[in-house]
Amino acid sequence: MSGGADALRRDTAFAGWGPPELKPELSAGVLALLRERIGETQPAPEAALGSVQLPEATAIPEAVTRAAGGEGAVSTTDEDRIRHAAGRSYPDLVTLRGGALPDAPDAVVAPADAEAVAATVAACSETATAVVPFGGGTSVVGGVAPERGGCERLIALDLTNLRRVDVDPVSLLARLGPGLRGPEAEAALNERGFTLGHFPQSYRYATIGGYAATRSAGQASSGYGRFDALVTGVELAAPAGVMRTLRTPHTAAGPALRELVIGSEGTLGVITDVETRIRPAPAVRHYEAWFAEGFEAGVEVVRTLAQSGELPDVVRLSDREETEVSLAMAGMGGLKRGGLERYLKLRRREHGSMLIVGWEGERESADRRRELSRRALRAGGAIPLGASGGRSWERGRYEGPHLRDALMDAGVFVETLETAHSYSQLGELYEAVRTALKRATGDGVVMCHVSHAYRDGASLYFTFLAAARRGSEIEQWREIKAAACEAIVAAGGTITHHHAVGHDHAPYMTSEVGELGLDAIAAVKERLDPAAIMNPGKLLPG
Amino acid sequence: MSGGADALRRDTAFAGWGPPELKPELSAGVLALLRERIGETQPAPEAALGSVQLPEATAIPEAVTRAAGGEGAVSTTDEDRIRHAAGRSYPDLVTLRGGALPDAPDAVVAPADAEAVAATVAACSETATAVVPFGGGTSVVGGVAPERGGCERLIALDLTNLRRVDVDPVSLLARLGPGLRGPEAEAALNERGFTLGHFPQSYRYATIGGYAATRSAGQASSGYGRFDALVTGVELAAPAGVMRTLRTPHTAAGPALRELVIGSEGTLGVITDVETRIRPAPAVRHYEAWFAEGFEAGVEVVRTLAQSGELPDVVRLSDREETEVSLAMAGMGGLKRGGLERYLKLRRREHGSMLIVGWEGERESADRRRELSRRALRAGGAIPLGASGGRSWERGRYEGPHLRDALMDAGVFVETLETAHSYSQLGELYEAVRTALKRATGDGVVMCHVSHAYRDGASLYFTFLAAARRGSEIEQWREIKAAACEAIVAAGGTITHHHAVGHDHAPYMTSEVGELGLDAIAAVKERLDPAAIMNPGKLLPG
Repeated sequence: MSGGADALRRDTAFAGWGPPELKPELSAGVLALLRERIGETQPAPEAALGSVQLPEATAIPEAVTRAAGGEGAVSTTDEDRIRHAAGRSYPDLVTLRGGALPDAPDAVVAPADAEAVAATVAACSETATAVVPFGGGTSVVGGVAPERGGCERLIALDLTNLRRVDVDPVSLLARLGPGLRGPEAEAALNERGFTLGHFPQSYRYATIGGYAATRSAGQASSGYGRFDALVTGVELAAPAGVMRTLRTPHTAAGPALRELVIGSEGTLGVITDVETRIRPAPAVRHYEAWFAEGFEAGVEVVRTLAQSGELPDVVRLSDREETEVSLAMAGMGGLKRGGLERYLKLRRREHGSMLIVGWEGERESADRRRELSRRALRAGGAIPLGASGGRSWERGRYEGPHLRDALMDAGVFVETLETAHSYSQLGELYEAVRTALKRATGDGVVMCHVSHAYRDGASLYFTFLAAARRGSEIEQWREIKAAACEAIVAAGGTITHHHAVGHDHAPYMTSEVGELGLDAIAAVKERLDPAAIMNPGKLLPG
Repeated sequence: MSGGADALRRDTAFAGWGPPELKPELSAGVLALLRERIGETQPAPEAALGSVQLPEATAIPEAVTRAAGGEGAVSTTDEDRIRHAAGRSYPDLVTLRGGALPDAPDAVVAPADAEAVAATVAACSETATAVVPFGGGTSVVGGVAPERGGCERLIALDLTNLRRVDVDPVSLLARLGPGLRGPEAEAALNERGFTLGHFPQSYRYATIGGYAATRSAGQASSGYGRFDALVTGVELAAPAGVMRTLRTPHTAAGPALRELVIGSEGTLGVITDVETRIRPAPAVRHYEAWFAEGFEAGVEVVRTLAQSGELPDVVRLSDREETEVSLAMAGMGGLKRGGLERYLKLRRREHGSMLIVGWEGERESADRRRELSRRALRAGGAIPLGASGGRSWERGRYEGPHLRDALMDAGVFVETLETAHSYSQLGELYEAVRTALKRATGDGVVMCHVSHAYRDGASLYFTFLAAARRGSEIEQWREIKAAACEAIVAAGGTITHHHAVGHDHAPYMTSEVGELGLDAIAAVKERLDPAAIMNPGKLLPG
């Protein structure tokens, strides 16, 4: 049997999103656009993997090694420790690229199966060894930061070997191992004629366990539902024992424990099994671009679609700045930008908002739903730009984080954050966060899109760029992040719609759930993780 | 200001479902049918309200009275104590009708608003006074049983005065007070052009707070969603303080505390505010009857509809015995039974399954969805019986519990229970529960219908009748209930799809959520309700 630490993934740049060959080159035009919008930047070097400094490892207890399945399940090489020392937030990448890690796991442990995970967690609890559950390592909020809490030792518990796929084709359910990456799970389901329908931007590297632990949302979540809406059951290996929720489409038997495990971000235990709803693999996927009269008008169209039950499966509405930058970059990418601009001017949409919409499913159903949506789009003042814009979005749908690597090479501060609110409060939240980001970035690029719509409200996803402050990148990030978070909290938005809490949002959890809410979560944690070894420093403040 | 204990509702029979005038008379034909199917029964007398015996009340602490708003908020009359001494389960009604109550609340307290509820709960916690939150009192699982836990005193906390209705028409959200009964909430929303879309069989008397506390499901929940899917936010007045979840369409900020409060059945605190999704009031409600080839074939049709996203808003599929009994009773009610039977025989559906389906909404959308469903129904071998069967169902949709009163008068044991499972396990669960009920009722009437369908599974709702064992009705009930629950647990179903846990299902919670799951709920309870005053004896076993 293969597996153990031999199976650990080492296929991405240690300090970047994907492998180097997927990092795009910034064209002269894009560099000029950046210069125009955020001023001069200084290219930032990146340390070589071999030169990275990290603290020496403390030996982990033999009981932990034994529980995990023996020496073969444990790696203490520098490379594996470095690869499990950070997620993929901007400050994570700044630190990795800098080549000096303040801390790293003492060992990377990769048990063969759920039983070995449970045994490992129990052994760690008995030996005061902190555990960071590790799936794809794609957290952008410090969710896998190597924090020790009060523990002397720390392991990253890599779930690479837990990759089962069992399908119940009658009930349209699948049991999926937490270590499956998005494309692996999707390929296995596609082979049997099904789809999970979950396509977050982190799709290429993020895992099923991570989706569940963080309440992930995907680009087609308007249609298929957020990941928390797909999950019907979970198994959690906690230090105090194993919890498995019942396999039932619904129950009225008390508080939903499933909803306690989903979103627990590794602080209660390790998710070792996930049961999710699946759908028949779509015969058709059709994406197209539209242009709304403006962002506000576009939000109204999205609201109308959502509230009439005619929402496309994919909806992404960019604000004016994101639309301008996207068109500028697309233009420089060789698309027929001039013609498009003339057309938009002619149709009085030159300050409009780009809207990507898409339908997936059986041909007849997708076509029917498309016709209904198109009617509402037209009635709301949007004009069609055709399928080529949709195809262009589809080609680039997972490219954002690769582009970030290139931007960081060029010395650009680049970060994203997301929030959500009900429709009646959404405009106010948008203005508040945008204003805060503009101020904090020194009038940098601040772009926003709505990417997940519900009957009662929608999410806002901000991407913002500035010239990086060389040598004090993390301080700069901290200032901007704090300004944005404070604006969100003041406007009553959620601190995170789908990136989760991790380390970075933990200080805002009191605003989010209140003192008594925190107490309730802490009470569960104390019961399930009495030695407080599970993912210290995440989710709960202080 | 009106309110306080003066506003307590006294508009139903103290030992029955509704007012006496809504209790139907059993025709000679129905009585003959019962005799044929369950044998002879002995009419059972019902005590008069004035003759009911109940223990003397212990005085409640002055601090509680003060916190509730003074003497005017407290009633200690026998009538109010009796009316708050039980829910509406079969054993509840047996006890009430018997006229001797083993216990009752010492007082009924009706605070004027959420602040007074919070103060009352806090005062109760400091004085070891048990609290049973009381909405409509319609629990069929002992959810409002006057259990004291370790407390010397017990109050029923009646939420009659908390009946606010605030609408956000842009976000399609409403804030509803927990004391609103179904028709009150619906009328207030209808007036503004909206609907809650929640129509459980208990609709006439159950309250918004009860819906949330018990994870209620309604007859149109296939379309609108179960109540737990409608709720976007809650406020809980717990002994340890007030918890309010954020108003946001979705969040990834940790475990969902909303899902901890929903379904908590008064054991963590009192729900004082509920925010729910609402819909535009439907222009059209169209219900019709179909006939499937049999129950199994009918389930397949329902599954196809649900999994293709073309499920009607109302779906109710009866098994063969429920279909036979319904047709027999309808026939005796004067409908053209003979013609129907000839038609069914002609179409080879004489052993078929009755299927009620319905669509609600804008005319165009309802018509379109109806056409899609009808196509699938036909493809699945179902044949239409037309709209008169739908109207007949609509007329009787809330009558079941009124009929129970008449059956109990006639000496009939009559009970219901419900469960759910994924489609691949549903047939096995159905057979197991039906077999257990047939055996336990001595070959009584055992009817079943599917009433809530999901993409992954469906609920099963059993109604069963036998001749009541005079003088040992509760023992008879206990034996039958235990047999059914054990069959459900053995088949892996949930112990309750929408009736909740209450007192009666609490012994099965370990099977439902496991030891560690119970520990997690208990940990939250200890934190929020440290003196263990909230609804003792419910939800958690032992």
